[in-house]
Amino acid sequence: MSTSPNHMHLAAFVTAGPGRPGGWRYPGSEPNWLSASYYQHIGRVLEQGKFDLMFFADILSVPDRLSGSMDSQLRYGSLGSLRLDPTPVLASIGAVTDRLGLAATVSTSYLEPFPVARSFATTDHLTDGRAAWNVVTSFQDSEARNFGKDRHIDRDKRYQRADEFLEVACKLWDSWEDDALVIDPDAPLFADPERVHHIDHEGDWFSVRGPLNVARPPQGYPVIIQAGASPKGRDFAARWSDVIFCSHASLESARDFYQDIKSRAVRHGRRPEDIKILPMATPVIGATSQAAHEISRELADLVPPLAGLSTLSYHLDIDLSGLPLDEPLPDADVPGVQGHYKEVVELTRREGLTLRELGKRYGGRTEGTFIGTAAEVADGMEQWFAEGACDGFTVGATHAPRAFEDFVRQVVPELQRRGIFRKEYEGRTLRDNLGLERPAVGAWHHRRYGV
Amino acid sequence: MSTSPNHMHLAAFVTAGPGRPGGWRYPGSEPNWLSASYYQHIGRVLEQGKFDLMFFADILSVPDRLSGSMDSQLRYGSLGSLRLDPTPVLASIGAVTDRLGLAATVSTSYLEPFPVARSFATTDHLTDGRAAWNVVTSFQDSEARNFGKDRHIDRDKRYQRADEFLEVACKLWDSWEDDALVIDPDAPLFADPERVHHIDHEGDWFSVRGPLNVARPPQGYPVIIQAGASPKGRDFAARWSDVIFCSHASLESARDFYQDIKSRAVRHGRRPEDIKILPMATPVIGATSQAAHEISRELADLVPPLAGLSTLSYHLDIDLSGLPLDEPLPDADVPGVQGHYKEVVELTRREGLTLRELGKRYGGRTEGTFIGTAAEVADGMEQWFAEGACDGFTVGATHAPRAFEDFVRQVVPELQRRGIFRKEYEGRTLRDNLGLERPAVGAWHHRRYGV
Repeated sequence: MSTSPNHMHLAAFVTAGPGRPGGWRYPGSEPNWLSASYYQHIGRVLEQGKFDLMFFADILSVPDRLSGSMDSQLRYGSLGSLRLDPTPVLASIGAVTDRLGLAATVSTSYLEPFPVARSFATTDHLTDGRAAWNVVTSFQDSEARNFGKDRHIDRDKRYQRADEFLEVACKLWDSWEDDALVIDPDAPLFADPERVHHIDHEGDWFSVRGPLNVARPPQGYPVIIQAGASPKGRDFAARWSDVIFCSHASLESARDFYQDIKSRAVRHGRRPEDIKILPMATPVIGATSQAAHEISRELADLVPPLAGLSTLSYHLDIDLSGLPLDEPLPDADVPGVQGHYKEVVELTRREGLTLRELGKRYGGRTEGTFIGTAAEVADGMEQWFAEGACDGFTVGATHAPRAFEDFVRQVVPELQRRGIFRKEYEGRTLRDNLGLERPAVGAWHHRRYGV
Repeated sequence: MSTSPNHMHLAAFVTAGPGRPGGWRYPGSEPNWLSASYYQHIGRVLEQGKFDLMFFADILSVPDRLSGSMDSQLRYGSLGSLRLDPTPVLASIGAVTDRLGLAATVSTSYLEPFPVARSFATTDHLTDGRAAWNVVTSFQDSEARNFGKDRHIDRDKRYQRADEFLEVACKLWDSWEDDALVIDPDAPLFADPERVHHIDHEGDWFSVRGPLNVARPPQGYPVIIQAGASPKGRDFAARWSDVIFCSHASLESARDFYQDIKSRAVRHGRRPEDIKILPMATPVIGATSQAAHEISRELADLVPPLAGLSTLSYHLDIDLSGLPLDEPLPDADVPGVQGHYKEVVELTRREGLTLRELGKRYGGRTEGTFIGTAAEVADGMEQWFAEGACDGFTVGATHAPRAFEDFVRQVVPELQRRGIFRKEYEGRTLRDNLGLERPAVGAWHHRRYGV
């Protein structure tokens, strides 16, 4: 399945909860985070906008990194306050959409490969090849403590585990050959025992006999998404990812990252086009440029600084509560997400932000480049795309569902007019629409070992 | 919410795969086990028939208990040949139904309580209170070997783990008080931090800090289903279950079981009506009694004896491959499912079956009482219900979706005419329709410790 190289790809960043501490307070946000219809509506809107996929972030705890307390997360409806399990949410959206890809975040650090591989294989079948897995390794002690551990495993170890976890998952997806399911009632031959195999995996972290009890997924492997920004994470992402989700404060840093990942991919024997890099964009659209900036200010004003700092503390995995609010974020050795740290350091320097201001900005997550009229937002996106900073975007909503509705109604047609985004889905599966090949049985070996 | 004590309750037993080695070969079976629409269609049919719930069995491996080989399961499309993960399947059915309860089987032996509690809480929210959990402890070495273990944990230990697993799950569901989610955008107060609690569970099997990152489920706790038939299992079920799924070869053994469970429940300080006991019924319906028996024979003829013995080997957890096919099943010390063993011993004695005949019967799973015209099937069901053998039934399909369609079209109206089954759903949630109370925060303590 071929897609146009002149077309960008669009993912939507969604949280199965309020997500943003200002957004849920803003008109156009609907307080239905516990109901299927809320997510189904967003899915329908995105599919109408021909989005490649809808992507659910996830956390396995209510974070307590600010002052060692969950208070700021819960009180302000911050990123980790309430989160439904994304897997059933995806399936309920799959039931009312036809072409939209559906991605769930699942951690390799606390679960076992057999049920995870099985769950994604199932979703891929139920949606006729639209499943994607955002592979994360987790990093919060608060998550570890929900799984019988005091502390999280360290970065090196958790990437070793993730590598082996993905190897086992791929082996399980491959355990039924593509034509193993025969369904011949006369023979009878339901599945050919010669084409279903034990995997007999014995590794450092996992021992799994297999086979999976689900036939090979329509996409071979579900689409693999990754977001690692540390050197370990980049290397992991360059080997395993089909799609990379990232976050940059400027076109320049996005371009540096883009080039770095693509050359890492080439060093691993992959083609640059085998990985789609989709940095985060959270547009604010107004009838005029001035109106958009006004909306952006209104949104920021709805974010109590502690609400944003609470999530930043969680992302960086450091307690920011002791720091003076009227000074800039100091340099720090950050154990958490390197990508977010780089992003806020750049933002702080460029705009001379105090920690208080950074908190408000971080809680709102609106980036400067994408505030304006629909045409101006499209200008910004086109520029990043044309100048080699990305293969498209992961679009966030300042307030949902309204911001997605506005984007689809106003920006998507603008991108289509400019010939840089599809007018119709090209294919049946998410891989088709992303312009990615369907991996053959055994394709994991090259990603894992480079041979 | 009150339901009529004169009304039976109906669950449907469904496998997310072919399930029966004869059924998938029979006209009226549709080979769409990988597609959402297949399960959604069955869900709609059952909802039209006012079923309380649809129940998905599960296995975490392709069984290899017969001759140490998966061959007979795969070749004949037996019970464990192919099984989708029930959780996303449920969510996709939830999206197209309104009142039907939706139950998934999830094992307490290989997973962790945090993600399991979260998954069921999510499904309960997405379906407005229709989720149910069939709690199983698993017993196959083939399952253990998919989770890094050589052998399954023994029966005593696995029930200890299950007890603690349920305790942790209930604590997590209770970690958000019912009114913790405030959603006041002006204050702002999203969730009240005073009403969301760490659970700080430290036990023999699990250490979980909590809270869950999902608000308390609409039903308080999802409906708990259990199927234990061993003394350990009965005791566990009598304490924890809202619904019991079981399997009996005669009204007499069903009644013995019914009385035993209800008196165990009373000994644990529960009311008999707090537990609904729904034995398996797999009706074969014909225009005449003779036609029904003819269909039953045709279905049995489509079952290769090894296909049924393969599943019986799995259920009993003993390899039957060495035994002479033309002699009856010998007495054995059975490590597997006690209920199924009792059932086949009774069947073998009553009908003088050879092992070969038992294999065909077991693969088809049609019980003698429920073969006939719709009125005769209703007679059988009414008799069991009136004579104190059950509170209703778990209805299986000899071939799906047709057998469910036939049952809903022909037997349900017959039961309704007799005034022993509802014409409309009584309530909003599954608990409402089952006539069960919504558990208050802390209700688990009584079930676990009897005080």
